Amino acid sequence: MDNKLMLMIPGPTPVPEAALLALAKHPIGHRTNEFSNIMAEVTANLKWLHQTENDVLMLNVSGTGAVEAGIINFLSPGDRILVGSNGKFGERWVEIGEAYGLNVEAITAEWGKPLDTSLFAEKLQKDTEKQIKAVIITHSETSTGVLNDLETINRLVKEHGEALIIVDAVTSLGAFNLPIDKWGLDVVASGSQKGYMIPPGLGFVSVSPKAWEAYKTAKLPKYYLDLGKYRKTAAKNTTPFTPPVNLIVALHTTLNMMKAEGLESIFTRHQRLKNATRAAVKGLNLPLFGSDDCASPAITAVATPGMEADKIRSLMNKRFDIALAGGQDHLKNKIFRIGHLGFVCDRDILSCIAALEVILPALGHENFTPGSGVAAAAKVFNQD
Amino acid sequence: MDNKLMLMIPGPTPVPEAALLALAKHPIGHRTNEFSNIMAEVTANLKWLHQTENDVLMLNVSGTGAVEAGIINFLSPGDRILVGSNGKFGERWVEIGEAYGLNVEAITAEWGKPLDTSLFAEKLQKDTEKQIKAVIITHSETSTGVLNDLETINRLVKEHGEALIIVDAVTSLGAFNLPIDKWGLDVVASGSQKGYMIPPGLGFVSVSPKAWEAYKTAKLPKYYLDLGKYRKTAAKNTTPFTPPVNLIVALHTTLNMMKAEGLESIFTRHQRLKNATRAAVKGLNLPLFGSDDCASPAITAVATPGMEADKIRSLMNKRFDIALAGGQDHLKNKIFRIGHLGFVCDRDILSCIAALEVILPALGHENFTPGSGVAAAAKVFNQD
Repeated sequence: MDNKLMLMIPGPTPVPEAALLALAKHPIGHRTNEFSNIMAEVTANLKWLHQTENDVLMLNVSGTGAVEAGIINFLSPGDRILVGSNGKFGERWVEIGEAYGLNVEAITAEWGKPLDTSLFAEKLQKDTEKQIKAVIITHSETSTGVLNDLETINRLVKEHGEALIIVDAVTSLGAFNLPIDKWGLDVVASGSQKGYMIPPGLGFVSVSPKAWEAYKTAKLPKYYLDLGKYRKTAAKNTTPFTPPVNLIVALHTTLNMMKAEGLESIFTRHQRLKNATRAAVKGLNLPLFGSDDCASPAITAVATPGMEADKIRSLMNKRFDIALAGGQDHLKNKIFRIGHLGFVCDRDILSCIAALEVILPALGHENFTPGSGVAAAAKVFNQD
Repeated sequence: MDNKLMLMIPGPTPVPEAALLALAKHPIGHRTNEFSNIMAEVTANLKWLHQTENDVLMLNVSGTGAVEAGIINFLSPGDRILVGSNGKFGERWVEIGEAYGLNVEAITAEWGKPLDTSLFAEKLQKDTEKQIKAVIITHSETSTGVLNDLETINRLVKEHGEALIIVDAVTSLGAFNLPIDKWGLDVVASGSQKGYMIPPGLGFVSVSPKAWEAYKTAKLPKYYLDLGKYRKTAAKNTTPFTPPVNLIVALHTTLNMMKAEGLESIFTRHQRLKNATRAAVKGLNLPLFGSDDCASPAITAVATPGMEADKIRSLMNKRFDIALAGGQDHLKNKIFRIGHLGFVCDRDILSCIAALEVILPALGHENFTPGSGVAAAAKVFNQD
């Protein structure tokens, strides 16, 4: 059936109709008062969403571009940095550091396990010479559904005093409480096709005063990704380069939707979606990939021993028009991932779990009581 | 009146309804066969539009990001480059070269005048050591409406033998004949909100085999803008990072429209729009900024001696919902610019000129025969 696709991948996430219609509005000139008025409102609402008084800058890039900007604007060649790496995205930030000639120390954990905060404590406490200039953490590791303990690692960085904390919040911002000012997070990067509920194309970077201090002496080359340019123009509610006008108009719409829902409600909803999904997966007698105490509010990874995960995804798509995400790299065909990020409601989880109940027996997984997945989700939903 | 805005700026340019509706389609997953099929068709049509067998890569960036990628992928720190600079964008490519520590020689001309090709001949012919690694030319200088003589400069670069020719074709691609393979252009960068007839958000870079050879030893750091990553994934009809799915779906629509119109017809139309606009401006007894023999097919700049150009723009907007572009930097308030790029038809030029005829007398410009602007445009349109 056409046009019935339901996205349950970690991005692009579902887009509300009001945002799609905003997207379809004819573009306006970006050097106009009309556009600047939109920019002003969008920027104010971004600060609200980021819980910060810091600059929150918008770039015409993907999430990766936003994180790269968040790294290269504040460092110089040879600078020592610690990068948490326990998934596809952590690995990518290591690669970026290396591509720019930084002195990168990867602090790794197995995919599916959270970063070990004691390893950060050790490195940071030993660094009495204050050589470590930044610590880069992927908050919600999209590839595995693991939420790293940013709060603890950030506290260690604060005790170190010198290093900046740079956060990939691509699949946590707008899903999980990330109080930037309260925690003192220096740089937080995210992308539009996630919690923001609009299509891909915009990246966001929030920058603290301490990071701006580092910017002054940072020597890595940049131009399009030079955040100083964005800061300068943002102060006048404009952009250094032609912005993706339609996406910003759509974002204007979804940020207003988010304000109407309220931060607390958004976080509670994601928590509930996560809990229901995880309970349902257990009800289906499938192993969760990653434990409950480090589970991302945005995405749940499910292991599929004895089954090809991609066959599950393929059947879910064919029979029910539900798009699930697969495993990446060595996890390909070993796990599937259920996205519950952004414009997702309780009903979507029920649909997904019910559909899984239909197809799993055909793929040889019969070791569950029919209805047990939905029943487990129902129990969570009835708790609230 | 709401929703009556007519964009006659050099970008964003007008977007056809079919593309706006495509833009409003719910995003699909970017790691799907469905999306890869779209990518395959889009890429084939991009090569058709670029008149090349070279790779044509799509990046989630503005035109500036595309040009930056076109520069930094092929050069190393300290490399000597020549950069043509006769407007805002030429100046920007000089800045990019300097930001990356290249040895930049700007070859300048006054804003409104074309680059002097003999200055390039001199530098290139003197360089018997083949130290010059690239020559960067803005084909259509958007800030002034000047079309530089790329064909001649490219011939000089070819005689030099070593240097790459890197072209900012942001407002010439899809408006003017730019036969990449025939001329042997190494790198050609452009942006979506121009001749492509979709909103801003996508950049394009075509790369020749010679440029890919240079890529192998190029040492400037990059990651998000690393074209090698885009080339590798494009071969599998996918992207290294989450692409702006909706924009690509809209581009799929407009490229099909362009194919239906045909390259020759597109170029002829832009030539006609340019000729009619220039004839009309002369008919209105206003001085053209820049002479006919170097006039951009995308944009016509008009000087406004004795008047504030921004008042003309403001009245055109207020009275007739026509958005014109202003002058940049030292040309602010001294010129206005009429965009006739992309989804623009003869009627649009008539509307714009007729509207100018209404408002100019109120601003003190009465030194023209009423009707003479439209009459001059009509004459051009009746020649075809």
